[in-house]
Amino acid sequence: MTTTGKPQIPDDTYEDLMQATARALCEHGYSRLRVRDIDEYFGKSRQLINHYYDGRDDLIEAVLKYLLAEYERGIAVGDDVDPEQQLHSYIQQFLYGPDIEDFDHWAFVMVLIELRSQAQHYPHHQKLHMENYRHLRATLITIIERGIEEGTFRDIDADIFATAIMHVISTSRMRKVCLGDEEAIEDGRRILNAIILPALLNEPKAD
Amino acid sequence: MTTTGKPQIPDDTYEDLMQATARALCEHGYSRLRVRDIDEYFGKSRQLINHYYDGRDDLIEAVLKYLLAEYERGIAVGDDVDPEQQLHSYIQQFLYGPDIEDFDHWAFVMVLIELRSQAQHYPHHQKLHMENYRHLRATLITIIERGIEEGTFRDIDADIFATAIMHVISTSRMRKVCLGDEEAIEDGRRILNAIILPALLNEPKAD
Repeated sequence: MTTTGKPQIPDDTYEDLMQATARALCEHGYSRLRVRDIDEYFGKSRQLINHYYDGRDDLIEAVLKYLLAEYERGIAVGDDVDPEQQLHSYIQQFLYGPDIEDFDHWAFVMVLIELRSQAQHYPHHQKLHMENYRHLRATLITIIERGIEEGTFRDIDADIFATAIMHVISTSRMRKVCLGDEEAIEDGRRILNAIILPALLNEPKAD
Repeated sequence: MTTTGKPQIPDDTYEDLMQATARALCEHGYSRLRVRDIDEYFGKSRQLINHYYDGRDDLIEAVLKYLLAEYERGIAVGDDVDPEQQLHSYIQQFLYGPDIEDFDHWAFVMVLIELRSQAQHYPHHQKLHMENYRHLRATLITIIERGIEEGTFRDIDADIFATAIMHVISTSRMRKVCLGDEEAIEDGRRILNAIILPALLNEPKAD
């Protein structure tokens, strides 16, 4: 991951710096973040940061790319299982966090939400967030369309259902990390189980 | 609205200052906001701001209270209509913005979302956001429970449906103001019309 006119950062240093910046963002928030806060987690010289990045905003853009890529990798679900299991796995990872080594999921969700909330001031960030949103939705649409074809899901509008699932989960995550609302994730699970999934699954309704 | 140890701000000045601060927040974002940016919209002396508020964070807390109060007033729906109309009115105002004079709805939603995204760093803000969330949800639960009693709505869990409606709308608003996603509001409308409301309303299903 290079920055125009700047030398290429070695992989190990890159990984350490991204993690350090994300952790510093998480602790201090974007509005109060100084390069010296990143240093506390990075443990190397501030000059090294300036060697590879053109200041704070350039570094933040690199972190955003890193977090979104980690996130997309984490949420990926194999198509070696049936669509219902795939959907379950997607929801599980999106609601409770993917199981990635050395990846502090909720701390990074906090950073992503904060950067997203300010994206209107940073067109580059906005573009990255939109790409990520579209990527995650496309993954979900593919799963749902496969389920419709195979008869597991009803013949509904895959786009609307994919978007509905994302909206429910997105607000659950926001409530958990921003408001510290401990009921948020289970609320999301209950909404999906009680309203969205029964309307999607091709099985007799309880009522 | 007084600040401990500070003189009470006159109503007119208060209204002007809250609007000016919200607009400055909207233009610059919290992370880049300086008191001089507020001055540009306020058009009065910076000393006047310091006369009534203990610095930037005290002022931001006052703005948050102001915006949430405006918002709750805007979203209020009368109970002189039947629950289905009440629910429709609530959704309409929450999705498209309440019709309040001199109140630039979407600009202020942007500010609220940005403050909310940083609420974990400001316990006072977090408390205000939680109170607002609970207030809006309680309003919706009351409408749904009345509809169940009167037989307009099915005998479902009002809490889950209220929360589902809020999650769908909340992400629609976030996508609109943060990502500039022009499809967001109509996506919210389609999810409610295609999935949530059919499961709530006590009427024969199309399928």
